[in-house]
Amino acid sequence: MENALAVLRVNAGRFRTRFDALSAIGATPDGGLDRPAFSIAHRLARGWYFEQAEQAGLEIRVDGAGNHSALLRCGPAGGPTLLLGSHLDSVPNGGRFDGALGVVAALEVLQVVKEAGFSLGAHLEAVDLTDEEGHFANFLGSLGMTGMLDAGHIENPRGGRERFRRALEDAGMDEGTLLSAGRDPRSLAGYLELHIEQGPRLAEHGDDIGIVTNIVGIRSFKIRFLGRADHAGTTPMDRRLDATLGASAFSLAVRERVMSEYPRAVATVGNMVFEPGVFNVVPRSVVLSMEFRAEDETALDAMETELMRLARAEAGRFGLGLDVQMLDSSPPASMNAGVQEAIGEAAEMLGLRYTFLHSGAGHDAQCLAPICPTGMIFVPSVSGFSHSAKELTSWQDCVNGANTLLQAALLLAR
Amino acid sequence: MENALAVLRVNAGRFRTRFDALSAIGATPDGGLDRPAFSIAHRLARGWYFEQAEQAGLEIRVDGAGNHSALLRCGPAGGPTLLLGSHLDSVPNGGRFDGALGVVAALEVLQVVKEAGFSLGAHLEAVDLTDEEGHFANFLGSLGMTGMLDAGHIENPRGGRERFRRALEDAGMDEGTLLSAGRDPRSLAGYLELHIEQGPRLAEHGDDIGIVTNIVGIRSFKIRFLGRADHAGTTPMDRRLDATLGASAFSLAVRERVMSEYPRAVATVGNMVFEPGVFNVVPRSVVLSMEFRAEDETALDAMETELMRLARAEAGRFGLGLDVQMLDSSPPASMNAGVQEAIGEAAEMLGLRYTFLHSGAGHDAQCLAPICPTGMIFVPSVSGFSHSAKELTSWQDCVNGANTLLQAALLLAR
Repeated sequence: MENALAVLRVNAGRFRTRFDALSAIGATPDGGLDRPAFSIAHRLARGWYFEQAEQAGLEIRVDGAGNHSALLRCGPAGGPTLLLGSHLDSVPNGGRFDGALGVVAALEVLQVVKEAGFSLGAHLEAVDLTDEEGHFANFLGSLGMTGMLDAGHIENPRGGRERFRRALEDAGMDEGTLLSAGRDPRSLAGYLELHIEQGPRLAEHGDDIGIVTNIVGIRSFKIRFLGRADHAGTTPMDRRLDATLGASAFSLAVRERVMSEYPRAVATVGNMVFEPGVFNVVPRSVVLSMEFRAEDETALDAMETELMRLARAEAGRFGLGLDVQMLDSSPPASMNAGVQEAIGEAAEMLGLRYTFLHSGAGHDAQCLAPICPTGMIFVPSVSGFSHSAKELTSWQDCVNGANTLLQAALLLAR
Repeated sequence: MENALAVLRVNAGRFRTRFDALSAIGATPDGGLDRPAFSIAHRLARGWYFEQAEQAGLEIRVDGAGNHSALLRCGPAGGPTLLLGSHLDSVPNGGRFDGALGVVAALEVLQVVKEAGFSLGAHLEAVDLTDEEGHFANFLGSLGMTGMLDAGHIENPRGGRERFRRALEDAGMDEGTLLSAGRDPRSLAGYLELHIEQGPRLAEHGDDIGIVTNIVGIRSFKIRFLGRADHAGTTPMDRRLDATLGASAFSLAVRERVMSEYPRAVATVGNMVFEPGVFNVVPRSVVLSMEFRAEDETALDAMETELMRLARAEAGRFGLGLDVQMLDSSPPASMNAGVQEAIGEAAEMLGLRYTFLHSGAGHDAQCLAPICPTGMIFVPSVSGFSHSAKELTSWQDCVNGANTLLQAALLLAR
């Protein structure tokens, strides 16, 4: 039986046909994808997914968080379920691979196991999780499924409360179903997700498979440098309290400090808003959007201390006031050691070159990690492009990833 | 006669009563003024001004550019006219002194001369010029009066074409009257303007009167640093093309270079607009608004060369593209030597401490300078505040300025 399982492979032709069909739903003219959660394209994609699952002879199910599952009852009666999944939603004008690859691969894994007719130690469930990208609220489906979604998370949805309410209603959901969609952790054998790396490391090192060790924690801040508005013609330059200078010097200092002291971490200044923001007035205020990411809480704490010290120093240097507001803090998540081992064993058996790496992006897996053994498989992203039409993973890498998912799932559901 | 003229002084009580009455028209709760050109407050102020002129026994006249003049025919028949003026419009939420002081003082000068009954070598005209602050288009009235207004200047008015058209119509004007309001330069003996300094130099040096030597030229640019949008979590910091870095480094370099190499000039980065401008994406593009001001074309040319070189260097340093667009260029204007001399003589006679300085702000005088002998008198601004409710000039300084205007006008119209 062990050997019979080991020779199973995904049906690459069927896998590709499905992936291409899915890529057409919400396709943009430049070869990308526009399929935000609850959009028409997203709903069409979910409908297509259920059609495929039913054609494959799988059961289908939608939970209170809108998660769309295909089920294969291949385990013992009352046995646990191993979840394989990702998400069908995209960022606006995103790429074809982010999320979609993992969902189509999970479906393919279930169909291959079903066709082989094997019984395993766990049932298999291929799940498309709701709004991973946070069109309304990040990780809505995976947080709902873990029962860790709290009312605060959905209080101020990005698209506005009214649009969110209508989107839920159209999908047959409401706040009540979202907040009561939690599953019993004892019913879950684990969660396994295939995803593109979205960064350049695998491709640059010639690795086929990345085994994710952990997902970074993220902290985001609004930092306001406060000076004084002055006439740009009549105020000598050495008499100004110019908010531009503090914001500019801080942006450069952040980059330098993080690159030299925290080479495994990243920090980004994504925006600045100037006030009054006109040619002929010295800016009174600049509000800067900054986030940083690191692998563990110790590094996050150290970076926060260091970057806030830099902000105070640069504000002080230019005589400016400083106002710091933390907007969000998402904790780092470790992937399960046993799951990492199973992925490595699968890759080795398939003759694939693999490496261990952390994920700089957030994923549904970080929500599942606290309640069940969780792991992620990365495949290479050409040039590291992501969240854009340039997102690309070679077809061979997609197939390698799907076979690794299949074999790792078989090892975990043994 | 010379001595009789020399003892003339403005009526300080009447001057103050008028100034306070005018300050109430469009007053803001914080002690400032909101009286943009063509607003209801502005039209009320102009109506009030004509009432005052008529009560003083002066003729009134409105030209095709909407300039409101009070006339005293104290010169020989067919003789030239010496213009004394400034503007009654303010920036939104501006101060009480900018412009208004010069108009009320000019009216007071005409009334004093009329009451003294003297005949001079020129007629006197106290003029309130239209839209100095550029609510629709900078220096609309003074450019119209010189005949130098071209259709391009009013093609894209700041408030929009339709609002501008209606504002003109309500004021009994149109594009045609604007473009044909030019006066014959031979009919003008000169233009003299009393204005607050809007900067801190006079107050800090304890000077009563500033004699303006020239008005700076201004060049303004949109400078775009162009990088690449990347995922803020998965793109290593040394692999980014982050537009923030070029824009930030350039802002700091501009300040350093201008302060060390062009200490009499100023440069200002007034705004930056980020794209896409969100927390979790490395900015693809930053468009920076920059202007600089210097006293002569040589300095302006040198600064432009130098600052564009800095922009290229900083873009290159961070691997960014660069796109530079000049938006506006206003040439520097020299004040007439004879007018400067007359102002100095007037100040000396009044026992006032005076100095020579350039104006870092633009003024109607720069439009008049090419067609007639032009000069400006500055009085101290407390702490240099301007274009804000904090704008303040001590009442004694206002009276000193008005008496200097009176005496300089008498010297020039002798």
